[in-house]
Amino acid sequence: MSILFTNVAALTMDPAKPALDGAFVAVEGTKITFVGTQHPAGEFERVVDCTGKVMMPGLVNAHTHVAMSLMRGYGGGCDLHTWLNDYIFPAEDKLDSRCIAAGTALGLAEMIASGVTCIADMYMHTGTVARTVLESGISANLACGAVYFGAPEDFSPKTCNDCENHIRLFEEWHGAGDGQILVDASIHAEYTSCAPVWEWVAEFAQKHGLGMHVHVSETHSEHEKCIDKYGTTPAQLLDRYGVWNNGGIAAHCVHLSGGDAELFAKRGVTAVHNPVSNLKLMSGVAPLFFLRDCGTSLALGTDGVASNNSHNMFEEMKVAALTQNNSFGEDHGLLPSADILAMATVNGARALRRDAGVIAAGKMADLILLDVTHPNLFPCHDIMENLVYSAAPSNVVMNMARGKIIYENGTFLTLDLEKIRAEVKNYALPHIFG
Amino acid sequence: MSILFTNVAALTMDPAKPALDGAFVAVEGTKITFVGTQHPAGEFERVVDCTGKVMMPGLVNAHTHVAMSLMRGYGGGCDLHTWLNDYIFPAEDKLDSRCIAAGTALGLAEMIASGVTCIADMYMHTGTVARTVLESGISANLACGAVYFGAPEDFSPKTCNDCENHIRLFEEWHGAGDGQILVDASIHAEYTSCAPVWEWVAEFAQKHGLGMHVHVSETHSEHEKCIDKYGTTPAQLLDRYGVWNNGGIAAHCVHLSGGDAELFAKRGVTAVHNPVSNLKLMSGVAPLFFLRDCGTSLALGTDGVASNNSHNMFEEMKVAALTQNNSFGEDHGLLPSADILAMATVNGARALRRDAGVIAAGKMADLILLDVTHPNLFPCHDIMENLVYSAAPSNVVMNMARGKIIYENGTFLTLDLEKIRAEVKNYALPHIFG
Repeated sequence: MSILFTNVAALTMDPAKPALDGAFVAVEGTKITFVGTQHPAGEFERVVDCTGKVMMPGLVNAHTHVAMSLMRGYGGGCDLHTWLNDYIFPAEDKLDSRCIAAGTALGLAEMIASGVTCIADMYMHTGTVARTVLESGISANLACGAVYFGAPEDFSPKTCNDCENHIRLFEEWHGAGDGQILVDASIHAEYTSCAPVWEWVAEFAQKHGLGMHVHVSETHSEHEKCIDKYGTTPAQLLDRYGVWNNGGIAAHCVHLSGGDAELFAKRGVTAVHNPVSNLKLMSGVAPLFFLRDCGTSLALGTDGVASNNSHNMFEEMKVAALTQNNSFGEDHGLLPSADILAMATVNGARALRRDAGVIAAGKMADLILLDVTHPNLFPCHDIMENLVYSAAPSNVVMNMARGKIIYENGTFLTLDLEKIRAEVKNYALPHIFG
Repeated sequence: MSILFTNVAALTMDPAKPALDGAFVAVEGTKITFVGTQHPAGEFERVVDCTGKVMMPGLVNAHTHVAMSLMRGYGGGCDLHTWLNDYIFPAEDKLDSRCIAAGTALGLAEMIASGVTCIADMYMHTGTVARTVLESGISANLACGAVYFGAPEDFSPKTCNDCENHIRLFEEWHGAGDGQILVDASIHAEYTSCAPVWEWVAEFAQKHGLGMHVHVSETHSEHEKCIDKYGTTPAQLLDRYGVWNNGGIAAHCVHLSGGDAELFAKRGVTAVHNPVSNLKLMSGVAPLFFLRDCGTSLALGTDGVASNNSHNMFEEMKVAALTQNNSFGEDHGLLPSADILAMATVNGARALRRDAGVIAAGKMADLILLDVTHPNLFPCHDIMENLVYSAAPSNVVMNMARGKIIYENGTFLTLDLEKIRAEVKNYALPHIFG
């Protein structure tokens, strides 16, 4: 399929040409083939006039548990301990593959309608997640988040289910859909596993050249307990076992110590900020200025809907911007909108090893169009301010992922929303919640 | 007009009957005339089937400067001083009535599409605001926010324009549209006026039985400078002049002292929380638990779009909920969703002296319907959690204000959006920004 977008006003995230106005953007196959002010040569199967719209790179949700959309608002209002033990864990115990497929499709629908073209997901029944993602058309880095509560001395790749899961996930799905699916090696978190697991996962990543996805220092108590137990922080402890040798993504990073941020900068690990979830679970606010000043790359994610309770990357950008300066006593000013937008696009794409997140020739055609005539986006004195502080999922009128339009003017072109709703209502909810 | 809503699932905010399911709600003229599970007697001009929707009271935006929608994102990223002095004040200097009409209509369109049925607005050219509000169909408490920088000894109602404005606004507009418009007496803030003004405005409110609308302790420096100058806080200082004798609304209240909250509880003053604006302007987070525990009633507002940059009361609810526990060191848990919803509906209505904000017979028919089949609101384990943490303006598919449907399925029935956009683009923006 070849598509030509005309009259394009765009925020490109390309430093060489940050803004377009009245431009042409051409897409052939999965790639952007042309960006410029002259009509490109060639025939196009479809021409899309972008008058009244703004184009930007598709949003990258760099840390989520998409199937948890089934638990939206479930146990809300409880403290973290009650919420996890009385609500989330018992519900998760009942999840089967069919539930996961339904919840994943529902979560992807919400994300696609709000401009997401690429995610990093960590959850169970990961093969099922992969199948659903493939159908949806977006790109995903998938991880099964190794958990192991056995004694370290009893560990073997055969006693730890998640080693088996890693192998199967990698063999079946890594690179599927011409790279649409990438598999990341993954440790759920320091406190849910132990050294032999870290060693095994690190070696697995090394052997197959995979990325890494780990929850790091989400809560103060997690961070401090690790220091008490091991004499060092989760980030630095995992580094001893080679976990960061290929870089990777560290989700949350709310309570990093100084050395952690420098380590991440050195290893090329991206800290994925999840501001809404961190506030809702009362974990705190990750210190973005500090991380940035240490040279750590920053990306953005919604985390699971159970603790958000949305897959709304526009809200995530706004809350990320609003909460920084009010949280650390020092007056840094607001985090610039350009930085926030980079977190939600190009930084996330880079962290997920995707040549995307930028509108430029040769890049993956992950593009979204926003209707900027709606009263919530008008007038526009500064496009970056409007995108960070005023834009909403409902402004997204087109989502193109990997060169294919998968959502347009409220219609899903790859997912069957009626079927998804019926499956959630008639199978998943009764199955999980009785 | 008489309308019957059938198959109503609702959050009523009525303690006697908080939730409805499969119910009937009837509206005649401006009032709700029936709420119950039996089909009411009588003929109805229209019947609206609410299957797949949730009804709730219209949202009350209890502190805003609606015409500032013209300045959305203008000067964003600057510090407060630069933003005000180099951007906002020079722009405001150029506002004429025609700009105010355009900006007000634009702001009202954004609010109506997001479920607002009643506002408290403080701005200039207030008569123009009144005219535009009347056309829109929503209810508004309007205030011209007295400012006086002259010497106190030179004050007379004739040397202070805003005294004249108060008189004119009251005489022309108080009670207009059968109570659609109410005029509030108003002092912009302690630091922008002086004792004779406060005395005059307090007496004016007393004489005419009006509400009161004042910015109070928005910033730390405003609060502290008042204590330095007068030996007491803005709230308590104004009380000496009788400003709170009729109750009223105190916007922001980010930096109240202990005695302030008790005073507000005693005087029946409602503290209007503006969390997004307070974060964006780096003013801080108002201590809602403390205010609530002192017995102060709490409502919610967006403030002006120039410092928000949205009129999104759903976002305001979510940010209000998320930021409380993370801001005060003590672990209060999250502010309950029921409290947040009361702030955005019944508390705001009560503060504005409106018999609204509740779905019950005899109340003003300010009602909204949300489509709960959209992926961002599905599934629903707890309707209050979904409304506070997951709902978005785009879920609003009907806005009924004062018994009249003014917005339905994306169409504005009282405002002409094309005309508003053209007026903003062709007149207001060139006039203000050159």
